[in-house]
Amino acid sequence: MSPIKKIGLFTSGSDSPGMNAAIRAVVRTAVFYDIEVAGIRRGFEGMINGDIELMGTKSVSNIIQRGGTMLKTGRSEQFKTSAGRKLAYDQLKKNGIEALVALGGNGTIKGMREFGDEYPDIAIMAVPCTIDNDLRGSDFTIGYDTAINTVIEAVDKIRETAESHDRLFIVEVMGRDSGMIALRTGMGVGAEAIMVPETKSDINALFDRLQRGRKDKTSKIVMVAEGDEPGGAFEIGRAIMEKFPHYDTRVSILGHIQRGGKPTCMDRVLASRLGVAAVEAIKEGHTGEMAGLIHNDIVFTPFDQSVKHHNDVNAEFIRIVEMLSL
Amino acid sequence: MSPIKKIGLFTSGSDSPGMNAAIRAVVRTAVFYDIEVAGIRRGFEGMINGDIELMGTKSVSNIIQRGGTMLKTGRSEQFKTSAGRKLAYDQLKKNGIEALVALGGNGTIKGMREFGDEYPDIAIMAVPCTIDNDLRGSDFTIGYDTAINTVIEAVDKIRETAESHDRLFIVEVMGRDSGMIALRTGMGVGAEAIMVPETKSDINALFDRLQRGRKDKTSKIVMVAEGDEPGGAFEIGRAIMEKFPHYDTRVSILGHIQRGGKPTCMDRVLASRLGVAAVEAIKEGHTGEMAGLIHNDIVFTPFDQSVKHHNDVNAEFIRIVEMLSL
Amino acid sequence: MSPIKKIGLFTSGSDSPGMNAAIRAVVRTAVFYDIEVAGIRRGFEGMINGDIELMGTKSVSNIIQRGGTMLKTGRSEQFKTSAGRKLAYDQLKKNGIEALVALGGNGTIKGMREFGDEYPDIAIMAVPCTIDNDLRGSDFTIGYDTAINTVIEAVDKIRETAESHDRLFIVEVMGRDSGMIALRTGMGVGAEAIMVPETKSDINALFDRLQRGRKDKTSKIVMVAEGDEPGGAFEIGRAIMEKFPHYDTRVSILGHIQRGGKPTCMDRVLASRLGVAAVEAIKEGHTGEMAGLIHNDIVFTPFDQSVKHHNDVNAEFIRIVEMLSL
Amino acid sequence: MSPIKKIGLFTSGSDSPGMNAAIRAVVRTAVFYDIEVAGIRRGFEGMINGDIELMGTKSVSNIIQRGGTMLKTGRSEQFKTSAGRKLAYDQLKKNGIEALVALGGNGTIKGMREFGDEYPDIAIMAVPCTIDNDLRGSDFTIGYDTAINTVIEAVDKIRETAESHDRLFIVEVMGRDSGMIALRTGMGVGAEAIMVPETKSDINALFDRLQRGRKDKTSKIVMVAEGDEPGGAFEIGRAIMEKFPHYDTRVSILGHIQRGGKPTCMDRVLASRLGVAAVEAIKEGHTGEMAGLIHNDIVFTPFDQSVKHHNDVNAEFIRIVEMLSL
Repeated sequence: MSPIKKIGLFTSGSDSPGMNAAIRAVVRTAVFYDIEVAGIRRGFEGMINGDIELMGTKSVSNIIQRGGTMLKTGRSEQFKTSAGRKLAYDQLKKNGIEALVALGGNGTIKGMREFGDEYPDIAIMAVPCTIDNDLRGSDFTIGYDTAINTVIEAVDKIRETAESHDRLFIVEVMGRDSGMIALRTGMGVGAEAIMVPETKSDINALFDRLQRGRKDKTSKIVMVAEGDEPGGAFEIGRAIMEKFPHYDTRVSILGHIQRGGKPTCMDRVLASRLGVAAVEAIKEGHTGEMAGLIHNDIVFTPFDQSVKHHNDVNAEFIRIVEMLSL
Repeated sequence: MSPIKKIGLFTSGSDSPGMNAAIRAVVRTAVFYDIEVAGIRRGFEGMINGDIELMGTKSVSNIIQRGGTMLKTGRSEQFKTSAGRKLAYDQLKKNGIEALVALGGNGTIKGMREFGDEYPDIAIMAVPCTIDNDLRGSDFTIGYDTAINTVIEAVDKIRETAESHDRLFIVEVMGRDSGMIALRTGMGVGAEAIMVPETKSDINALFDRLQRGRKDKTSKIVMVAEGDEPGGAFEIGRAIMEKFPHYDTRVSILGHIQRGGKPTCMDRVLASRLGVAAVEAIKEGHTGEMAGLIHNDIVFTPFDQSVKHHNDVNAEFIRIVEMLSL
Repeated sequence: MSPIKKIGLFTSGSDSPGMNAAIRAVVRTAVFYDIEVAGIRRGFEGMINGDIELMGTKSVSNIIQRGGTMLKTGRSEQFKTSAGRKLAYDQLKKNGIEALVALGGNGTIKGMREFGDEYPDIAIMAVPCTIDNDLRGSDFTIGYDTAINTVIEAVDKIRETAESHDRLFIVEVMGRDSGMIALRTGMGVGAEAIMVPETKSDINALFDRLQRGRKDKTSKIVMVAEGDEPGGAFEIGRAIMEKFPHYDTRVSILGHIQRGGKPTCMDRVLASRLGVAAVEAIKEGHTGEMAGLIHNDIVFTPFDQSVKHHNDVNAEFIRIVEMLSL
Repeated sequence: MSPIKKIGLFTSGSDSPGMNAAIRAVVRTAVFYDIEVAGIRRGFEGMINGDIELMGTKSVSNIIQRGGTMLKTGRSEQFKTSAGRKLAYDQLKKNGIEALVALGGNGTIKGMREFGDEYPDIAIMAVPCTIDNDLRGSDFTIGYDTAINTVIEAVDKIRETAESHDRLFIVEVMGRDSGMIALRTGMGVGAEAIMVPETKSDINALFDRLQRGRKDKTSKIVMVAEGDEPGGAFEIGRAIMEKFPHYDTRVSILGHIQRGGKPTCMDRVLASRLGVAAVEAIKEGHTGEMAGLIHNDIVFTPFDQSVKHHNDVNAEFIRIVEMLSL
């Protein structure tokens, strides 16, 4: 096998803080090994349309600390069809791209798995970038640590208002199928209760929980993952208002701020290490794998094992949150 | 007139960052002048119920930097009745309180104006605490500067996502009758357009505005004050989605985080200066006035002139925002 | 007089947060009026060397929130000579530049005043960018508000450690000839004392001040402007350690972090308004003036009146700080 | 063995962010199990002097997000003598304290080991609180994650200035015998080089490193741990200025801000989990151990194995930093 001469790099799916740090690591590692890097803009869409440009050491200067992705990102319906993937493949060949480094989450890895099955002559490595932390193959995904800090900073502010007014706040955080953000941030802000999609949330258990607390604790926070079944923070809020009309209950949806912000130190370090690992893996002949960090070691996990999974909800976390908020 | 021996201090209405810094200033200034300070909890409610406690120099240690209000706040329906105000007056007399320092916004000042008309033997000074910056008698109200910084930090994060995805974001900020927050933050984040309640917002003008921009400018921010007529950010979002279905349009309601957070330096300084001024004014025989800062000088404005007003919308601001976002 | 067709824009002296927001405003206002903008890099040095490039609307995208200056800055010994200024003039003429917008502080304005006297055919407007807030002609300079918030965030952190250890901290902030940063931040963090260059600081008065406080107040902050006479925070620290050996005294020099950071909302708004005003002033025939904001109105002040001055120290500020920290 | 009825809790050594979150967890867990908690103020000093007070659920309200330690901390020469430890023991017995939870770093654990050897009837568990992350028995210590984020936020600001002026900055961070803070933050800010105490730093290697970079890379950061041998950031700065007089070189000592600040989400979660674990361990009969987290599992390590160690310097980290900063 002759050495790889040109790598295509792209970000796909929702953006997450640390993507730029990973882009920097991929580009500079490739340059270090005399491999060219072609930046593909807007994910699969740019791959299909040939929106591709060479990147150098300098083009990734001063981005390690920036949120978002300088390569832009997106979703592509076309790439879900084999015709679309054929167009993408042709563009890559036309541009002399022999390998891909894909930065994204579950959807990105799924797309790459299909593409890799159809076009095995393109080597592919993925780097897990998503605030949801819902992939197998890495203890943490890039962006998760930043997102949970963004959440607790926002809830710290909300709590000041809650305490000044003796209010109960229902705070909705991201995590369509995953309670990972809600669990750690709920513990981090000292919430009374956490509602996550992985467990069958029982509204009556929540009512009990809210009544069990100290009489003199007049402000409370309930943390809800957006995917939780009873129906989102607004429905939970409505149920509480009916059950406890004397509470001053408010709902807050944190929304899109959770994807932005300067990456934390841990996310920058994770992105740097995994970006380096992905390029070195390609150089050594790997393909069809995601680079992750498990117990502080670099680990490569095949795509079909790294896709999204429902975490076992950490029962220990729920137990601690309830014990400590009494 | 014999010198005032005891001042009652309370916060009322919505909380705003800097209230604690103002509390500290009032308490320590009073102690400096050998005046006792009685802290009244939960605003008018605590005044009626006699939820009152003496405060000293030490009780306000280490609060200058905290959001919210250590005295808690609230609204009281009872105080709106003359019977309720009579109860409050009796409690004040019972506690030996000869003067009041009221920290709050428009509703607080209105309440104090009525109370002062009925019970002129209690001297009253108000300190303007509201994030809305909608009072006459002070260039800025305490909390406004913090709130606008909280907003731009949130929108800076949203913009990173907007740019990565080429999205249009409609961001709703606080200001039920006032565009003050929307105006400065809209300029601060480089928004394409600002919709404020003071002007008749024209949805067609907004459509024009969005089309007039550069073709290559793919992400946009529209800042909406919650009180704007067309009907809130969601309705504006819906109208845009119908008119420009090819835009990737999202709505974000910033909500309660806007009231929290550590006060900025300017808000701490303003709160300190006005807290001092309010106590010294009482000492010098003032009553029925709000202490404010106009052109960096302390100014006292009678309650009936300091209540909320519709600002002349600063047309210059709108002009600049539109020119600079092209 | 025929209309100006091309403006040269540069930043000079120490950088300050908000310079980029001002650059954006100047460039887009000029584009709006069909005036070309040539960006001059590294201040006077780039003017002499012809390090000049055309800028457009897009080149200032996404910089409003960034610290530093995209045009880079610096000082130039050569420009202080008439030979150097002649070289600069020739470069400007060669590039077709008919007017200059200068972003900087006292040194920048002084340089422009000399240059303007020698070459009156180049119209010049200055925009006050310095964290020191030491210019006449504007209530605030661009960068000051950000710097004072950076300082109080740092001191809030130091105070947590001070309180946990019952320590006295001497904190040195920037301001070689000006106590403006020390004064407002000292009030903002609740310091025990503030030492500024404008007044003859008396170390014995400081000793008295430190002893006068409450016995149970175990942690203290003294804020020192770097230019204060007794000789910097280290010397003051040494004097205190000798006088009060039982205190746990530490010195902290905040240093260069004070020039960085995302500009606050007020700095972005100030930079946007003054950037617009400077270009419109040039268009209307002004020259040799600094655009400033006094009492919220745009004001133009001739260079010879806008240079640095020793502020009257606000005695009111010192009085309040001492009263409130008891 | 009869169940423990009263636990003594204290913080000792340098403060670290997250100590308050750990205090909250210890107190509330004890209350949950009907164990009394006596808060001992100022560490060993308060233990000797009997500065001890009962704590309840409410006394730890609203502290999870605060830096510093509400119990105050300190060092005690007296406790290093057996006479001092005897006094401490007598105070504990007098107060009916049967077990201790110690929050601190290496010095605290060493002190507890000696004390435990002498007075085995007091059960002792330690929780690792130090920003240095230099203890065996836990992947991370409480405060480390916050400290590294404080550092990168400060250096992000310094870098803006460095870039605007084309400067080289030598930044000194904490870590008297440990390069843990320098390593991760150096990678996080994209430093050119990192100098840590664990390796024999070679100033000539640093010179080489600085020359090897791109010619067009005009601003550089060198991260130095305070314990590095060549003699601190100032000496390194001086050596560079001599060798490369054409560089614009500056030194910045970050200092005490590194110990302060709101704890990050990870530090709050770690503190909560380890605080719970320490109390439950005491309940189950453990003593003489530190509660830590290894690979996300709670692990108990005997004191003599958990004391400070010189980390194997992660050569991988140094390699990545150098490769990525080219």
